Amino acid sequence: MQQFGVIGLSVMGKNLALNVRNSGFSVSGYSIDKPEVDAFAEYQDEKLLPTYSLAEFVNSLEKPRKILIQIAAGKPVDETLQKLLPLLDKGDIILDGGNSNFHDTNRRFHEMEAHGIHFIGMGVSGGEEGALNGPALMPGGDEAAYREVAPILEAIAAKTPQGRPCVSFIGPEGSGHYVKMVHNGIEYGIMQEFSEVYDLLRKVAGKSNAEMSKIFADWNQGLVQAYLSEITSEVLKQKDDLTADDVIDHILNVASYKGTGNWMLEDGVHLGAPISVIAEAVLARFMSKATTREGQEITWNGEVPNGLIDNLGKALQLGQAVAYAQGFQQLKMAADAYHWDLRYPAIAQDWEAGCIIRSSMLEDIENAFADGKQLDNLFQDAYFKGLMQKNLPALRAVIELATKAGIPTPTLSAALNYLESIFNPSLPANLIQGQRDYFGAHTYYRNDREGIFHTEWYEEK
Amino acid sequence: MQQFGVIGLSVMGKNLALNVRNSGFSVSGYSIDKPEVDAFAEYQDEKLLPTYSLAEFVNSLEKPRKILIQIAAGKPVDETLQKLLPLLDKGDIILDGGNSNFHDTNRRFHEMEAHGIHFIGMGVSGGEEGALNGPALMPGGDEAAYREVAPILEAIAAKTPQGRPCVSFIGPEGSGHYVKMVHNGIEYGIMQEFSEVYDLLRKVAGKSNAEMSKIFADWNQGLVQAYLSEITSEVLKQKDDLTADDVIDHILNVASYKGTGNWMLEDGVHLGAPISVIAEAVLARFMSKATTREGQEITWNGEVPNGLIDNLGKALQLGQAVAYAQGFQQLKMAADAYHWDLRYPAIAQDWEAGCIIRSSMLEDIENAFADGKQLDNLFQDAYFKGLMQKNLPALRAVIELATKAGIPTPTLSAALNYLESIFNPSLPANLIQGQRDYFGAHTYYRNDREGIFHTEWYEEK
Repeated sequence: MQQFGVIGLSVMGKNLALNVRNSGFSVSGYSIDKPEVDAFAEYQDEKLLPTYSLAEFVNSLEKPRKILIQIAAGKPVDETLQKLLPLLDKGDIILDGGNSNFHDTNRRFHEMEAHGIHFIGMGVSGGEEGALNGPALMPGGDEAAYREVAPILEAIAAKTPQGRPCVSFIGPEGSGHYVKMVHNGIEYGIMQEFSEVYDLLRKVAGKSNAEMSKIFADWNQGLVQAYLSEITSEVLKQKDDLTADDVIDHILNVASYKGTGNWMLEDGVHLGAPISVIAEAVLARFMSKATTREGQEITWNGEVPNGLIDNLGKALQLGQAVAYAQGFQQLKMAADAYHWDLRYPAIAQDWEAGCIIRSSMLEDIENAFADGKQLDNLFQDAYFKGLMQKNLPALRAVIELATKAGIPTPTLSAALNYLESIFNPSLPANLIQGQRDYFGAHTYYRNDREGIFHTEWYEEK
Repeated sequence: MQQFGVIGLSVMGKNLALNVRNSGFSVSGYSIDKPEVDAFAEYQDEKLLPTYSLAEFVNSLEKPRKILIQIAAGKPVDETLQKLLPLLDKGDIILDGGNSNFHDTNRRFHEMEAHGIHFIGMGVSGGEEGALNGPALMPGGDEAAYREVAPILEAIAAKTPQGRPCVSFIGPEGSGHYVKMVHNGIEYGIMQEFSEVYDLLRKVAGKSNAEMSKIFADWNQGLVQAYLSEITSEVLKQKDDLTADDVIDHILNVASYKGTGNWMLEDGVHLGAPISVIAEAVLARFMSKATTREGQEITWNGEVPNGLIDNLGKALQLGQAVAYAQGFQQLKMAADAYHWDLRYPAIAQDWEAGCIIRSSMLEDIENAFADGKQLDNLFQDAYFKGLMQKNLPALRAVIELATKAGIPTPTLSAALNYLESIFNPSLPANLIQGQRDYFGAHTYYRNDREGIFHTEWYEEK
């Protein structure tokens, strides 16, 4: 009998199954797509079994069965669950490793619970390469069931630089998929920040692709030790297959998206989370499609200020910190609203390797939340407060220069405005409250006494 | 028999009923809240009839009955419809004047249609004073039914400076409530822009409340001829009832919201609309609640640049234009997605008086969309393109100064970044696409040939 089963054998499912096998566990694989099973069968050995029907698949697994569903999110997951249910026994464990919406996972968790089946919604990050060699895993649902699968998940997961596995129990219901959604929203934010820095490097600092590749590689050893620095350096130096140019100069500048960043923004709006960097990153992707492109190319004839490259690196470092901070701020608001006990240090640790937003800064975040510390805002932590004080002049200088040059910086501007607001004792929202009371008698609170107040602003007509 | 009926007699319903009576039509009023009917009865005359049961109310109306429901949005509307249905005849017309979500209005339109009842979801703006003396009305649903109520709606609506009524048929289904939702999102955006300009005036230009009141009053005669300029001036000069100070200095700086701006952002994300000013305004209200207030007060010791007040006025004028532009951009995307034939000049005209975002600029918007002109972006229109070219240096100067001074300007920054992007031929989204293809094999388009491409970025391990 096999120790683990995977349904769905396209590249993610196949690579996760191979990872399970390579980690020393036996695995069965099944797909409704026969050619996928045939391709999987080429890896067959005593620990890896292809199966050609759901019944054959289910019956090949030891009990309690541990089944990972790795297929397209949405209706296919519900259809697969309905087909699986009659074949399962109470106590079996299903993991959904797709990018499911956490609302669906909440629902499925309770539907499966009613049948005595343990349902774990698990965020998986790291792409196809991560799936094979070590993904970041974010499982949420039933903690006792998690303990049953933990040995396998810990074996296949990426390992932090300290050798700890990038997987831990996140919390109840759909919280695992929620954390993956927030991961992806942060990813949108940081990627857009990188693109703005790239835009300033090429258009204001006048750097070539090769020079920029070197700059991001340097940052990866210094200010921004992050997977996205590493791959940005790689992308910028890649030659084109079809022309004599660098490929970056022939990639169309319209950003696509699958929508998990959008979901984070939607739930952020629902919760009242001020996640402006993520919002601007989502909207910047829309803008890349909406722009008419009928304008002039921007050419900067002004001076290139001393220390610009260093300022850009510091701005990116601080911008990255704001993207993380907004993600953790939304997680805290979600934990409060949905009554989830989320473990922030474990989430930071899960992201330290294997996933797209991995960076050395996540260790600092893990430390900031250590010992059950609750922060309304990451910048309340001494390390991040210090980083803010150190890098804020650089971020301001970058925004000033971008403004002069006419280069749009939606996420870097949002990061700056966020930092100028989070500790601000006198934001001007009193004017908004005054206007609202004036035109709609919406009332207001006061800063000098308790109660609800309304002003008779004008003579009644 | 009465010509019009109003259900719900709190301040909005009562004032709308009085407006109908004052416009020469007879009206019945009903509320489940008896004290409201008693208060309404004080206005009783031959044209105004209080009623104390739904049956008495319905039977007092001439056929086809024209009934305005003016109650809290949500479940109460459905409950009222269910109670009304058995009392109505085919062909009767119901208007919902509350701030209903357009999804609900879509559903109710079709539910009522199945019973032979015409349902009109109608946005109403202008607050209690507008309800009495002339609101802006945004009715959507069944056009033939609209024609039946048009004489009454045109009589009670606000009139533009040219004397045209601020009401016209918007389009099918929930489009009337959709347009009201967009109105409110624009309102969030412009109000936040005003608050940022106020913040710069007091903290950087060092102006007193009285001086600022004068500045906004001047702008109301010049750069920003808008209701919000007028009331900002009034709010800033209002004395406090409880202290010797101006009331603005004792209003707590935490912005409240009822959520229609949030709805616009949610649907904007659904549609892919780059409505960054509205998004930042929604998030700025969240931030006003989330800020820890533990920071230092900002004091500006730098120079106050020459022409700062004029630059602030121009920045506000252009920022206002961007808020409108984003609203109309979302309306166009909604019209395409929901198959609504929206009449943009009529919508602009509806907003020219009576509502919160009324301003002289809406006539320019009406002109921009005249003769069925379709614009992806308002700034493609010659007038607005000229305004952008004229005011962009001022907006940039304001952002530079705010950045230096450490004053957050989330919506003004978003307006600037939007303008730097909408005609930009080389936004840096090619880097995002390169990163996505690198880590997830998401593929990309090229700028020099058709097709879908993927690069083998590294040696497979």
